Amino acid sequence: MGDLIGDVVETELYYIGKREFDRVRNANAAPAEVIALAADMARLNALYMIAKAGSGHIGSSFSSLDVITHLYLSELGKGDVFFSSKGHDAPALYAVLIATGVLPEDKLHGLRRLGGLPGHPDISIPGLVTNTGSLGMGISKAKGMLAANRLAGKSGRVFVMTGDGELQEGQIWESLVSAANAKLADLTVVVDHNKFQSDFAVARTSDLGDLVAKFTAFGFHAVRIDGNDPVALAHTFRMLAEITDKPKVVIADTVKGKGVSFMEGTSIDSDVEMFRYHSGAPKADEYRLAVEEIEARLARRCAAINIEPVQVEKTERPTVAPAPAGAQRLFPAYSAALEAAAEADKSIIALDADLALDMGLLNFAQRFPERYVECGIAEQDMVSQAGGMALKGLTPVVHSFSCFLSTRPNEQIYNNATEGTRIVYVGGLSGVVPAGPGHSHQSVREISAVGGIPNLVMVEPCHPDEVGPLLRWCLAEHDGPSFLRLVSVPWPTAVRLPDGYTPRRGTGVTVRGGKDATIVTSGLVMVAEALGAAERLSAQGIEVEVVNLPWLNVVDSGWAKALAERTPAIITLDNHFRLGGQGQHVLAALAAANPARMPRILSLGLEDVPPSGRNDEVLALLGLDAAGIAESLGSFLATRH
Amino acid sequence: MGDLIGDVVETELYYIGKREFDRVRNANAAPAEVIALAADMARLNALYMIAKAGSGHIGSSFSSLDVITHLYLSELGKGDVFFSSKGHDAPALYAVLIATGVLPEDKLHGLRRLGGLPGHPDISIPGLVTNTGSLGMGISKAKGMLAANRLAGKSGRVFVMTGDGELQEGQIWESLVSAANAKLADLTVVVDHNKFQSDFAVARTSDLGDLVAKFTAFGFHAVRIDGNDPVALAHTFRMLAEITDKPKVVIADTVKGKGVSFMEGTSIDSDVEMFRYHSGAPKADEYRLAVEEIEARLARRCAAINIEPVQVEKTERPTVAPAPAGAQRLFPAYSAALEAAAEADKSIIALDADLALDMGLLNFAQRFPERYVECGIAEQDMVSQAGGMALKGLTPVVHSFSCFLSTRPNEQIYNNATEGTRIVYVGGLSGVVPAGPGHSHQSVREISAVGGIPNLVMVEPCHPDEVGPLLRWCLAEHDGPSFLRLVSVPWPTAVRLPDGYTPRRGTGVTVRGGKDATIVTSGLVMVAEALGAAERLSAQGIEVEVVNLPWLNVVDSGWAKALAERTPAIITLDNHFRLGGQGQHVLAALAAANPARMPRILSLGLEDVPPSGRNDEVLALLGLDAAGIAESLGSFLATRH
Repeated sequence: MGDLIGDVVETELYYIGKREFDRVRNANAAPAEVIALAADMARLNALYMIAKAGSGHIGSSFSSLDVITHLYLSELGKGDVFFSSKGHDAPALYAVLIATGVLPEDKLHGLRRLGGLPGHPDISIPGLVTNTGSLGMGISKAKGMLAANRLAGKSGRVFVMTGDGELQEGQIWESLVSAANAKLADLTVVVDHNKFQSDFAVARTSDLGDLVAKFTAFGFHAVRIDGNDPVALAHTFRMLAEITDKPKVVIADTVKGKGVSFMEGTSIDSDVEMFRYHSGAPKADEYRLAVEEIEARLARRCAAINIEPVQVEKTERPTVAPAPAGAQRLFPAYSAALEAAAEADKSIIALDADLALDMGLLNFAQRFPERYVECGIAEQDMVSQAGGMALKGLTPVVHSFSCFLSTRPNEQIYNNATEGTRIVYVGGLSGVVPAGPGHSHQSVREISAVGGIPNLVMVEPCHPDEVGPLLRWCLAEHDGPSFLRLVSVPWPTAVRLPDGYTPRRGTGVTVRGGKDATIVTSGLVMVAEALGAAERLSAQGIEVEVVNLPWLNVVDSGWAKALAERTPAIITLDNHFRLGGQGQHVLAALAAANPARMPRILSLGLEDVPPSGRNDEVLALLGLDAAGIAESLGSFLATRH
Repeated sequence: MGDLIGDVVETELYYIGKREFDRVRNANAAPAEVIALAADMARLNALYMIAKAGSGHIGSSFSSLDVITHLYLSELGKGDVFFSSKGHDAPALYAVLIATGVLPEDKLHGLRRLGGLPGHPDISIPGLVTNTGSLGMGISKAKGMLAANRLAGKSGRVFVMTGDGELQEGQIWESLVSAANAKLADLTVVVDHNKFQSDFAVARTSDLGDLVAKFTAFGFHAVRIDGNDPVALAHTFRMLAEITDKPKVVIADTVKGKGVSFMEGTSIDSDVEMFRYHSGAPKADEYRLAVEEIEARLARRCAAINIEPVQVEKTERPTVAPAPAGAQRLFPAYSAALEAAAEADKSIIALDADLALDMGLLNFAQRFPERYVECGIAEQDMVSQAGGMALKGLTPVVHSFSCFLSTRPNEQIYNNATEGTRIVYVGGLSGVVPAGPGHSHQSVREISAVGGIPNLVMVEPCHPDEVGPLLRWCLAEHDGPSFLRLVSVPWPTAVRLPDGYTPRRGTGVTVRGGKDATIVTSGLVMVAEALGAAERLSAQGIEVEVVNLPWLNVVDSGWAKALAERTPAIITLDNHFRLGGQGQHVLAALAAANPARMPRILSLGLEDVPPSGRNDEVLALLGLDAAGIAESLGSFLATRH
């Protein structure tokens, strides 16, 4: 994004139009050569989409592209469907769907934009048959589709791609059993075995063992092949067609980042190094080098089959506004607070589900290796392990993205809570932004999902300065489970917490004064936007108080009553579904407090499953940016009671 | 419970005191003979507890008793722990813990009673190290305990018993991976492989395949033995002690109901028959026959080792009040409504997670075999399968107990919801009663757990007459997911729905008039208790309206406003945690409706994890029976505003 290569700012992006794919597909050449060429063309386009969007998963898009291209160009027939259970290889799939005309060509330019292509699959997009991106569900869904086919007397096969890290999810193994018992030969699973998961090598994170033996023991016909070799792929799928009494799995040995030498997983020492191209856009210089390498290979491949070189289109890289000055980040404060706590309290132990980088745990893992447990993508197992540790006197701090942590091990969190132990759950990527990844990752339901567990207190800081005090409250003051909800995106905020501020259970703190109405909200994004809205309204002569209430599911009754009696209107504002969010807890507390006078109420929050898009455009669409909040609030105050 | 044997009412129950266990344990005999005898003595006591409680799991208590007895009598050393992950074999464990003096002897008489022994394990009971009963968590918890040991420099092994049906849960396989990678030789899993799960044979429900091969592929040292043979058990555990580089699993082939010939799983044709002694108390004649058979064997075993016969104590069977006249059952109405709907609409397909009997599906499965999918104990897989079916145009109706259905596949339900398909989730065993099974089965959190999913509407009928209309609304009128919450216990109710009543989204219906206050509630139990409370208050001259609001997470704003403006006080009443329950949705709607006058508010519901006990005593303790509600309401109305 405008990074420097030497002194030159790289400003161009490169893609290949559909007509070139048509031309290549009609070439008079061996199918495997055409597929290898088309897969490389799709690599250029996947890279284009990710570079343009500024985020996306290069590593697994590249590793899976030979399989996906093979399936669409020479395997899928009428009634057959393919989908990816992992879903973060969406750019690869989009590239192939555009190449084959399933998706309109102009969609190429809209990855992770409103009205474009979502960061993870959504069935609103032609060619996408199911919503994925939350791991482990794909084989189950495929079985449901095949059952529906059978009932309708229709034929058709389902090909499901999974990740290898994804195989750590218990649902995968849960889903195999009935497929085997039903001898579901119309089901083929392809494991994109690229050896790396989000943070580190699969073998280092949570080694999978002998996958062929495992799948065979579960009743599948299992084969293991080079998944980046079109000849092997063609041969394998031909052989598998002969197997009619078992579901099948192809363990496709692939290379993460395949096709760009310096991005390939094989180029690093996987025992110690982190793979750098799992998610996120390439830097400009890396982008240019990658394009050059792919273009050179395209030229060689074309020459080898005697066709004209592939025409590559060039376009301006969109200018991206620089990150706003004063953007605050919660995670550095979180890492520091956790490490300080662990230094002082030997009972603290951190558990993580393959998100050490995102959850700010890399340094913790180095400093306290004996108190850091990498669980892999196995949230149920992680949470129940934490339960066992807490019973033995440890204080587990359990990490994942909020969307997964609050839902996947939902019953396990409750089970732990029934034991009355102290466990801190820390959820990252909370809230509707970043909006790019789409609904599988936008966590806007956790207050309802776990907020009803007795004595489980949920908190969310609005500023780095509030992270430490809230974490310390969870670790030391609260006798029971808690959930620390953290926004992951850097966000500019004007909030200043009062000097000497200490969070007090169930009560809010005024961070801006105002007599005409009071916004009650929480978190880095919403407190900032509320303050922005208040500024806008102030310009219109409306003075709005902003209250930061870091308690998401507990509201002090006396505080609520006093609030109700001093303000004419209360606006609750949730970075969460309105239904079941903090606002609803505030409203219920207000009603139950029997105040002498009930203020007028407006509740803002998400009403429906959020779209994927750029942060600013999604917040604006939802009316949850400063401008939208100001507008809703202004209209509300302008109407008579 | 007072059933007839011929003309004789059986009124006596039989148990064995701790001193007899002490005497047997000190007998000069081969350990295996002592263990076989002690296990049979424990069988008599487990049977006693279940007969006295009127419910409990005979089948798996009996199948597991030889293993449990062996472990406690000759395997567990200092620092070692045992627990059962399945947990419904609790009577067996209690019997052994009482025999070994870990639990006080008088606890023998209090299974499933307040202050006694909970239906499933709870750490408040001496000797119970973790809360279980919700399946699949045990191995994970064991790993957590061992990690804590390691960190503390303590030694100690963990023995975890699982069911065989329990192996259908994905968390089991999720939890094996890190145990194998860590070479956790201090972990031994014992699979009580008794071949039957809740409804039918495991092989019929969801066949497990070759378990030794599966566990071996997952890196465990696996052995398979006769789990009811103390000699084999002793030999096996001796051998396993030699394995120091792997976690271990014993596939213990056991007989469900072992020890009473007519209760044994081997006595039926498992291809077609249901096992009758999974849960519930034996009939009086069966009880007597079972006692006779066990007593005869005890005599033989004592004679074989030359000790005096075991002294069996006799006690009066507690008289149990007959089921109250007019008790209503929701499930017959549900079964009829579902079958009628399926008859008319070929798109309807039912999915079940090993609870066909409890969820009223046996007849459906016979009538519509091609549209009935038995998924086994695999809720995540079931829900995602339903998602795949719905995408293909079917209308899946997905069944399990509410406590599992709302939590285990929590993210899968949300994922399906993001696809906008119509799926009906039907949860049984909803609410705090039956209270006997304890907190793992008391479902008092589902409104919060899934009620925050956009467009997912939760409904609960208060009478069999309301079941059909609500199911039809879910199946035909609502465009999206829904959750039908059903009480499973028969309950007497005075409710009468108005003639021609049709549920209208978000609105309640008055089922009793009254000017002094309004109770808003839902469901078979709470509407009945609210009416009972209103009767009591009426005798004191207080006239309370009772409103049945079958909508659990949607409240119509206009209706709420009108309600607020016509009553001086609103009492919300939840068969659910107050936090996140229906009452909170009502309160939030009232606050948001900006009524001209806000009534006084009282919210009743569960505040904490509920205890196990008899239904009447638990409801009374919680203040949620008619008397308790009347008392709270009377006090509330008596205090000045």
